[in-house]
Amino acid sequence: MTLPAPLTGVVPPVCTPLTPDNEVDTASLTRLVDHLVSAGVDALFVLGSSSEAAYLPDRHRRLVVETVVRHVAGQLPILAGAIDMTTLRVHDHVDAVTAAGADAVVVTAPFYTRTHPAEISRHFREVAAHSAVPVFAYDQPASVPLKLDPDLIVELASDGVIAGLKDSSGDEGAFRASLMGTRSMPSFSVLTGSELTVDSALAMGAHGVVPGLGNVDPAGYVRLYRAALEGDWKRALAEQERLCALFGMVEAGDPARMGRSSSALGAFKAALQLRGVISCAATAVPQVPLSPSEVERVGKYLAAAGLL
Amino acid sequence: MTLPAPLTGVVPPVCTPLTPDNEVDTASLTRLVDHLVSAGVDALFVLGSSSEAAYLPDRHRRLVVETVVRHVAGQLPILAGAIDMTTLRVHDHVDAVTAAGADAVVVTAPFYTRTHPAEISRHFREVAAHSAVPVFAYDQPASVPLKLDPDLIVELASDGVIAGLKDSSGDEGAFRASLMGTRSMPSFSVLTGSELTVDSALAMGAHGVVPGLGNVDPAGYVRLYRAALEGDWKRALAEQERLCALFGMVEAGDPARMGRSSSALGAFKAALQLRGVISCAATAVPQVPLSPSEVERVGKYLAAAGLL
Amino acid sequence: MTLPAPLTGVVPPVCTPLTPDNEVDTASLTRLVDHLVSAGVDALFVLGSSSEAAYLPDRHRRLVVETVVRHVAGQLPILAGAIDMTTLRVHDHVDAVTAAGADAVVVTAPFYTRTHPAEISRHFREVAAHSAVPVFAYDQPASVPLKLDPDLIVELASDGVIAGLKDSSGDEGAFRASLMGTRSMPSFSVLTGSELTVDSALAMGAHGVVPGLGNVDPAGYVRLYRAALEGDWKRALAEQERLCALFGMVEAGDPARMGRSSSALGAFKAALQLRGVISCAATAVPQVPLSPSEVERVGKYLAAAGLL
Amino acid sequence: MTLPAPLTGVVPPVCTPLTPDNEVDTASLTRLVDHLVSAGVDALFVLGSSSEAAYLPDRHRRLVVETVVRHVAGQLPILAGAIDMTTLRVHDHVDAVTAAGADAVVVTAPFYTRTHPAEISRHFREVAAHSAVPVFAYDQPASVPLKLDPDLIVELASDGVIAGLKDSSGDEGAFRASLMGTRSMPSFSVLTGSELTVDSALAMGAHGVVPGLGNVDPAGYVRLYRAALEGDWKRALAEQERLCALFGMVEAGDPARMGRSSSALGAFKAALQLRGVISCAATAVPQVPLSPSEVERVGKYLAAAGLL
Repeated sequence: MTLPAPLTGVVPPVCTPLTPDNEVDTASLTRLVDHLVSAGVDALFVLGSSSEAAYLPDRHRRLVVETVVRHVAGQLPILAGAIDMTTLRVHDHVDAVTAAGADAVVVTAPFYTRTHPAEISRHFREVAAHSAVPVFAYDQPASVPLKLDPDLIVELASDGVIAGLKDSSGDEGAFRASLMGTRSMPSFSVLTGSELTVDSALAMGAHGVVPGLGNVDPAGYVRLYRAALEGDWKRALAEQERLCALFGMVEAGDPARMGRSSSALGAFKAALQLRGVISCAATAVPQVPLSPSEVERVGKYLAAAGLL
Repeated sequence: MTLPAPLTGVVPPVCTPLTPDNEVDTASLTRLVDHLVSAGVDALFVLGSSSEAAYLPDRHRRLVVETVVRHVAGQLPILAGAIDMTTLRVHDHVDAVTAAGADAVVVTAPFYTRTHPAEISRHFREVAAHSAVPVFAYDQPASVPLKLDPDLIVELASDGVIAGLKDSSGDEGAFRASLMGTRSMPSFSVLTGSELTVDSALAMGAHGVVPGLGNVDPAGYVRLYRAALEGDWKRALAEQERLCALFGMVEAGDPARMGRSSSALGAFKAALQLRGVISCAATAVPQVPLSPSEVERVGKYLAAAGLL
Repeated sequence: MTLPAPLTGVVPPVCTPLTPDNEVDTASLTRLVDHLVSAGVDALFVLGSSSEAAYLPDRHRRLVVETVVRHVAGQLPILAGAIDMTTLRVHDHVDAVTAAGADAVVVTAPFYTRTHPAEISRHFREVAAHSAVPVFAYDQPASVPLKLDPDLIVELASDGVIAGLKDSSGDEGAFRASLMGTRSMPSFSVLTGSELTVDSALAMGAHGVVPGLGNVDPAGYVRLYRAALEGDWKRALAEQERLCALFGMVEAGDPARMGRSSSALGAFKAALQLRGVISCAATAVPQVPLSPSEVERVGKYLAAAGLL
Repeated sequence: MTLPAPLTGVVPPVCTPLTPDNEVDTASLTRLVDHLVSAGVDALFVLGSSSEAAYLPDRHRRLVVETVVRHVAGQLPILAGAIDMTTLRVHDHVDAVTAAGADAVVVTAPFYTRTHPAEISRHFREVAAHSAVPVFAYDQPASVPLKLDPDLIVELASDGVIAGLKDSSGDEGAFRASLMGTRSMPSFSVLTGSELTVDSALAMGAHGVVPGLGNVDPAGYVRLYRAALEGDWKRALAEQERLCALFGMVEAGDPARMGRSSSALGAFKAALQLRGVISCAATAVPQVPLSPSEVERVGKYLAAAGLL
């Protein structure tokens, strides 16, 4: 399907359910998609950081896109991450996800290598020239690790290179600069990936939100988005604060025993299993699984948020 | 061929010559291999950072290993990088390079994702269990970006998980800790990737060196290694200082216009072209090429080192 | 005077006007105080980062507090930074600024040394035990360089150690966590130091704002604060966006020639001189002054914001 | 006394013994000085990072320099740190330590503030113009936190601004660049602060070493230096490796309970107390003291190195 321009609303970065032996659990994946779609989300983003894209071999990535595209069957637009180190490698992922039916691709700055603003600009320009579908810039300094400069975003937007920005930087001052700098381009979409400040981003004029926690509580983010759309900031604030409390689950895992990715993605998956959406909470190798007592902590967050 | 244990000597990380349209230039690649082999190097490392592995799509990576393995025909051991974000993706590269004939694989800690010592340990253990050939740990904090702890290296060495360490961290105190901690394991190999302190590393007891600059002047590193082997530290120092001066070429590119990778790899390739080894100095997209005057600066470094 | 609890409203971090030979220009300083007070600000913060506290020797710091305290004469509360590396050094600054009449002190985590959460907690506890006036925690990761954890803030607030938080981290998710975690303590004050997201912070429930740019346009921040207080978020947004555009002046200085502090503080002082508030735009040694054409750029920002 | 040019040999950064109530223990300090002098060190460096300069209020700093200068009475040159955030604050420390009799001052780049190479250069030039005694540049990226560029060191050396470099960066490639770049200036001194690679630094041509661990085992570093001076690299290596093993004590403190400074400085002081040199192992507030079992671990390192 054609991507709306600008893309708006709630666009959850879809978790990738796995079997205990680290294969994609497609049955759980389609149930998760149903869970999200029935909550009223506006689009789906597969193969992002919350989807464990960094952990999925190419065959898993392909299976994820194919499964979701087939199951959604055009009801909603599908954005797919094309996460890799540099341009030519990204080209291959763009080819794979568009062949599988993705409606847009989401691309970070180069990583692993030491790069430069001029090279980042060239990277996005090459990828956009190569891609048959719109390209979203993915600002993910926790992973890449550099921040995309708002001036670069505005330049790329203005030159028609990118169709939107997915900003997970947590730098709301720069987010606002990207928003203000692209306001005159009515089809450009600025999405926040910061689960904890969605109300702020929407009040600034953001077009939508890509919340990892939206896997667990898509209806919450949909209510938050709609409250903001109606200018009911009081209701938006209350919903946002409920979601902030729920987000505490990302610290369920003991930091002495595992990294933040294991803890946060493990918590999201444990919550989805506890809510009956997916069959197994396994995260991809080499992440460390939550212990039973850590899963219990996740359950308490769900209960406190009225989700169990 | 079977990898010597420990692996010793000069093991250049082989640059990947490209055509002007970003395809692998296999004719130049085999000439580069001849240039290295005839200088007396002890093994070759393909698909490392200096090989622009981060920039090479899978088909290029495969072509590089196949070309080098076929051309070397068992004269020297071939190590190949299996550079990717996490375990299952690395498995696929391990499979590809060993199918193509690599004698060992070189693997970094996970990157893009936020990780933890326990996860890094599990990563190396899973990769080693999967790999049919020995695994070298690749400490590359400029890229990953985290430093491998010497305690982890010693633990993995002691458990037979890794056959060696390629340390490009520039942290010589930690390098020494890895060396001292593995000294009782006679087949374990500790290699430095720091071009500027090879004499120091060898004096500490390092088994060998993996110098990016060794593409340009392999004979210099061979002389340095042999001087150290003979305990002639005065000669080693003089050779090292000559190579340090030559290394200045990595700053040939204007930092206002390009990143450090573009400048350093661009300089190595320009030098190889000026020395008549490869046909084209192109670096992979989206790197920025050196200007003619910057290439001229590279030439001056070569001339000063007696290499033109 | 006694500090209101919670402290609320606009609390500009007062610039320190200097003479061309790097002495404190007390006449300009009192004019600047008048400029701020007459705009309706709620308190003054001297010897913070925007005051160039890091650049001021002890005699300058003392002169600044004495001058401002004497001039304000109890009309408004005066907070004073006690910025130094560790506890005992901070004690001396606390003694100096309280002797000079400050109503509260503002204290960062230890810096220069490598520290630990337990040590940071102990630091604030020792300083609070030593101080005769309330202590505000100053979260300033650009300088310290570490982020204060919201859990620590809540713990220190709950134990009565700190009276408030001045958060200049730019991490609005963590800011919200500090706000939500201290909401049950009615006298605790959470202030944002992020000029570009004041409307967001106030919508979250922040008590006030400490904007460096408030030196240049205090009336703008007062209007923004009052609009938020009245729940007129549309007016708040418009005012905030005008201030965001004005904030562009911090990039007036050429980054090839000077650091970000020279550029931003130089721009604020140039703007104050152009507006006729202070006599000389000099920043402290070893900062680099703006060139005439860079000052002209500052003037354009003022003109565009209707301030000239 | 006049500082030798170049300054050479072993220059321990003298720990600052404290009483249980955080006052300077001058009796222990003079015993520590005797311990160092009688081991044959070549100069003393007070008020550096290992001296807890960041933790000492001005009155403590003054007392330290006065005590050491008076006690040494011209037998050895005394270098003193003038550690503070920016130029004018450093001036005041320079004045204080030279009034107290220091023969040279040691100065870092500006910190707390965001700075620029041009500003760092100006900082050293202003300090040198102000100082009556020679200025050493102190490269301490763990604290400042930025690395001094070798090109800047060479420029400042060549302009006569600095008399030497104390390099604690651990970046031995850059260290070598500073050494090679200043070799033509016979009075310029390049000292390493990296305890674990002193043999390497001396083999490169370094003039001396400033080892924190030299408080605990000054005789070891003196032997290492002399072996290197005589070109006996085998003996130097053995001594260095013994010292590397001893250095393991810096990890005696539990990282879950304290920072690295608490652990390392706590271990040095515990070792000095166990060796009977100082009376109390207290580190300055807010550092966390070692537990009895952690002190026991320190003792085992001493015993293993033959120092108990």
